[in-house]
Amino acid sequence: MNITRKRIAQILESSTPKDKVGWFFDLFLVTLIMINVIAIVLASVASIEAKYAKEFHWLEIFSVIVFSIEYAARLWSCVDVGKINWRSPIKGRLRYLLSPAAVIDLIAILPFYLSFLVAIDLRFLRVIRLLRIFKLTRYSAAMQVLLDVLAEEGRIVFAAFFLLFILLMLASSGIYLIEHDIQPEAFGSIPAAMWWAMATLTTVGYGDIVPVTGWGKFFGGCISVIGMGMVALPAGILASGFSDQLHRRREQYSAKLNEIMEDGVVSGKEKSELDSLRESLDLDPADADRLFKAYQREINKMNTVCPYCSEVDKE
Amino acid sequence: MNITRKRIAQILESSTPKDKVGWFFDLFLVTLIMINVIAIVLASVASIEAKYAKEFHWLEIFSVIVFSIEYAARLWSCVDVGKINWRSPIKGRLRYLLSPAAVIDLIAILPFYLSFLVAIDLRFLRVIRLLRIFKLTRYSAAMQVLLDVLAEEGRIVFAAFFLLFILLMLASSGIYLIEHDIQPEAFGSIPAAMWWAMATLTTVGYGDIVPVTGWGKFFGGCISVIGMGMVALPAGILASGFSDQLHRRREQYSAKLNEIMEDGVVSGKEKSELDSLRESLDLDPADADRLFKAYQREINKMNTVCPYCSEVDKE
Amino acid sequence: MNITRKRIAQILESSTPKDKVGWFFDLFLVTLIMINVIAIVLASVASIEAKYAKEFHWLEIFSVIVFSIEYAARLWSCVDVGKINWRSPIKGRLRYLLSPAAVIDLIAILPFYLSFLVAIDLRFLRVIRLLRIFKLTRYSAAMQVLLDVLAEEGRIVFAAFFLLFILLMLASSGIYLIEHDIQPEAFGSIPAAMWWAMATLTTVGYGDIVPVTGWGKFFGGCISVIGMGMVALPAGILASGFSDQLHRRREQYSAKLNEIMEDGVVSGKEKSELDSLRESLDLDPADADRLFKAYQREINKMNTVCPYCSEVDKE
Amino acid sequence: MNITRKRIAQILESSTPKDKVGWFFDLFLVTLIMINVIAIVLASVASIEAKYAKEFHWLEIFSVIVFSIEYAARLWSCVDVGKINWRSPIKGRLRYLLSPAAVIDLIAILPFYLSFLVAIDLRFLRVIRLLRIFKLTRYSAAMQVLLDVLAEEGRIVFAAFFLLFILLMLASSGIYLIEHDIQPEAFGSIPAAMWWAMATLTTVGYGDIVPVTGWGKFFGGCISVIGMGMVALPAGILASGFSDQLHRRREQYSAKLNEIMEDGVVSGKEKSELDSLRESLDLDPADADRLFKAYQREINKMNTVCPYCSEVDKE
Repeated sequence: MNITRKRIAQILESSTPKDKVGWFFDLFLVTLIMINVIAIVLASVASIEAKYAKEFHWLEIFSVIVFSIEYAARLWSCVDVGKINWRSPIKGRLRYLLSPAAVIDLIAILPFYLSFLVAIDLRFLRVIRLLRIFKLTRYSAAMQVLLDVLAEEGRIVFAAFFLLFILLMLASSGIYLIEHDIQPEAFGSIPAAMWWAMATLTTVGYGDIVPVTGWGKFFGGCISVIGMGMVALPAGILASGFSDQLHRRREQYSAKLNEIMEDGVVSGKEKSELDSLRESLDLDPADADRLFKAYQREINKMNTVCPYCSEVDKE
Repeated sequence: MNITRKRIAQILESSTPKDKVGWFFDLFLVTLIMINVIAIVLASVASIEAKYAKEFHWLEIFSVIVFSIEYAARLWSCVDVGKINWRSPIKGRLRYLLSPAAVIDLIAILPFYLSFLVAIDLRFLRVIRLLRIFKLTRYSAAMQVLLDVLAEEGRIVFAAFFLLFILLMLASSGIYLIEHDIQPEAFGSIPAAMWWAMATLTTVGYGDIVPVTGWGKFFGGCISVIGMGMVALPAGILASGFSDQLHRRREQYSAKLNEIMEDGVVSGKEKSELDSLRESLDLDPADADRLFKAYQREINKMNTVCPYCSEVDKE
Repeated sequence: MNITRKRIAQILESSTPKDKVGWFFDLFLVTLIMINVIAIVLASVASIEAKYAKEFHWLEIFSVIVFSIEYAARLWSCVDVGKINWRSPIKGRLRYLLSPAAVIDLIAILPFYLSFLVAIDLRFLRVIRLLRIFKLTRYSAAMQVLLDVLAEEGRIVFAAFFLLFILLMLASSGIYLIEHDIQPEAFGSIPAAMWWAMATLTTVGYGDIVPVTGWGKFFGGCISVIGMGMVALPAGILASGFSDQLHRRREQYSAKLNEIMEDGVVSGKEKSELDSLRESLDLDPADADRLFKAYQREINKMNTVCPYCSEVDKE
Repeated sequence: MNITRKRIAQILESSTPKDKVGWFFDLFLVTLIMINVIAIVLASVASIEAKYAKEFHWLEIFSVIVFSIEYAARLWSCVDVGKINWRSPIKGRLRYLLSPAAVIDLIAILPFYLSFLVAIDLRFLRVIRLLRIFKLTRYSAAMQVLLDVLAEEGRIVFAAFFLLFILLMLASSGIYLIEHDIQPEAFGSIPAAMWWAMATLTTVGYGDIVPVTGWGKFFGGCISVIGMGMVALPAGILASGFSDQLHRRREQYSAKLNEIMEDGVVSGKEKSELDSLRESLDLDPADADRLFKAYQREINKMNTVCPYCSEVDKE
């Protein structure tokens, strides 16, 4: 029993092409999710829905069955994932239930079962299935890096959005004061004016509503300049966070490299250790190679230059 | 008397969750400010204002009373804030009066009192209250970091805006020359043409006014390409400034860590010192942890590798 | 024969102004490609095409002949390019055939020959010739740097685009749910709603379609804020990648400098080696000069400060 | 004579507030240029021009006289600027004539004199005066930093614009193929389609012309995504360039600091040397202070930690 559970855990979590079964299972799930997304999008077109209603229905039934089995299997085998042994399997499973990945998996199937219990608007029910797309995030290492950066820089990105909120308030109340009487429909209240203020601050600029008075245009120009600066803030923050993240990963890889190379040789086991670290850090193979060469250059320098007399010892 | 003043200063300035009274006071003020902002925005909608005029009035009275008391308390107790003892309490208070935070607090209540003395347009009076939103900046450490970066890179950001000003002049006078006769309403004068030039340079692009001649479109295309580059300039400047700011804060934390770890042990007092430094630098706990580990790695390396023979001393 | 082939390989690949023939040949090709691009663009204007049909035809014939000869010459002489000796000339040529540069060269001439065999829509045939513009990428070192960065950061840029795809799905299905009934033409299906979602997420904001209901505008505002953040992601990624690329190139140049300067003198041969490295790394001459000065400063410091007593040895 | 020339050179070039005459002269010129710019912009408004034609005329006469005298004085005294002694004053002046600053100064006055010789369109003549705004660049150190970065990263920014050119060609020819027959006015030829392609690639998105077919919208969506990436490229390049520029300036300042502090004391002369270096590098005083403190920390560390036994020598 426990061995089966362990094997299932391996299949579900495996992301190396070595485990053929795990790899094909991943491929199958990714394909199924993509087909689901495309089907839901197409089903929203009335003419297509009318023609293929049956096919869409059966696809839905099939998908929910697969995703339900996957969910149950993950819940059952989650206690065998990772190195930590859960003190109690039930506590471990409850904790897993609340992890983001498990919540996403639940959202993918819950609407289907709920529709039997509660009367939900059919169109809403269909569209909510699109959230299945989030199941794909599990399969992209680079995506994990992006989400990590977002989480890490969360506080400061939040501050940038708070600044945007303040600017939005000032922009919409300003244009409300200036053009309230001339364009009562567009700028009749501050909430109404927010539509224009948002489009301007984010430099989207739909142009369905624009100030018409001289002062309104002057104010609008100032707001678009500030907006241009605003667009920069999250960019700057995320850029610096991302660059830092990458440097840290490289440092981590270099530290491991240092440790492994201390005895001068790289054994087969050490090589595969390095490779799996590289993969988990989502480093480019070329990047890793570069770090290795830099390390070697450093070592050569150490060996050939005497630290006392500074003379070079030609090999 | 002095002890009461000191306690009030603590309550007003405290930002640690340990001081319960200070913490609840902060929460109360933040909530009140948010309610104020929402109320002012909603009051600008005619139908809501008509229905809840009374409630808005009493909220305003209550808020002004609270903010006035807060202002008075801050002014009275400001001499007990910080480490420096003001030579004269009156000079200290006058200096406090001119600090940005005190000016923001004053703006939050002044319009109310002024309205008794001077006849101010009612709508303007209401909207000016929205400036109370700036009182929130006091409560966000990350916001302080953002404002620091803006202040630090001020000169170069100013240069970027000056460059924008030059480009605005060239763009609006250029399009004025080209399309003056064909679209006399949109491009009849340089100030009029600025509206289009601004929307194009900031890539907002409302589209309410666009060049129609071939040369005008060619010129417009060039301006939008330059605009694309312009959007980049403040972004680049703030990004590099922000990244620098973060590195500097990390260095500062590392320096403190170095100092504290010199004797090899971290006492309880040193731990809380480190924590409060981390908080005032707005560093992520994970970030601080990472710096600590990097420090340890460095130390271990020093101890295990002999600086003379370069041989590794395995522990 | 082999000498002729070698000379042709040199002419075709040479990018230094020293090889006059190679340089003029490059100039001739770049000019011809630019003339082709301009001609194709102008030929799409009906009045110009009517007037100069003959000239455009002869230009096409001439260009195809030149490009065909160039293609054949490159294919023939490719075995003499680079340091590696191909084990078999035929295998080498087959491999060259599949290189990006060779494929671009083939695309430049293939449509002409295909049009004799297959009936292709004439307008399509003409426009496809525009792909000849890609032949220009061969002649720009800076362009190579840009493409290198794009290739290197490929995985993470792909993740950013995948995130955009997810957001696009959510944005278009959200607006479809909200405004389906009010604007059946614009938001009648998810694919239709994607047009608005795309314009908003990328901050292009055409404004031909905008939400009209309160909830739709609120949702639209949120999407434009998220879009503002999205625009930042590839920017941040490429910026950090580019900056890294540049630093690595500088390091590479410094390493070479170090190696060359070990004996204290720079011979003529070493100088030209450095120069060609600098060129292949696309480093600015001013940049290289700065690195050289930094190196000298480092050396001087080493020589004047005793590593034991830390006393400065004034020269 | 030579002393007068030297004094004039000082007044014209001085940018320190110590030289009162030079400082007031700078202020006077900056004010005059700003008044000129405002006057030219206002004069383009027909009603203002009609009312104040006389005032604008006299301002023009006065400005040209002042700028002409300035130009002559700069040309005369330029041989006393800088440390290098020109071998021949005439050669030196000729070289100065071709410097960017001198060309800008010439453009500011030339149109006025030319208008007596050649018949120039009056409106064009007036607008060309706006180029006087470039005279302001002389007075902003931060602006110089910006222009330096632009010049330094010129090659790679050029590559980014070349990439934009290629994308523009592909986008406009693609939409031309797709929507040629449906919207013959907007996409009737490739040059016409460029207007839409430009607005989309730069994310300006006027919305005066949009694709209407399904394929056109799909293609438009792809182009706007690519545009979003394009906007990133110059941003990334300039950001990394700017950040590098700043680091280099800081290094330069640190190197000077190192040199000055070698003997352990900072004399008054050394202090003013440092200050003028800081100003010419456009470093923030706070920034310079930080570098000084970092230097001191470094020194203290060196003195208190024995490099052999690694024990800390408590002071």
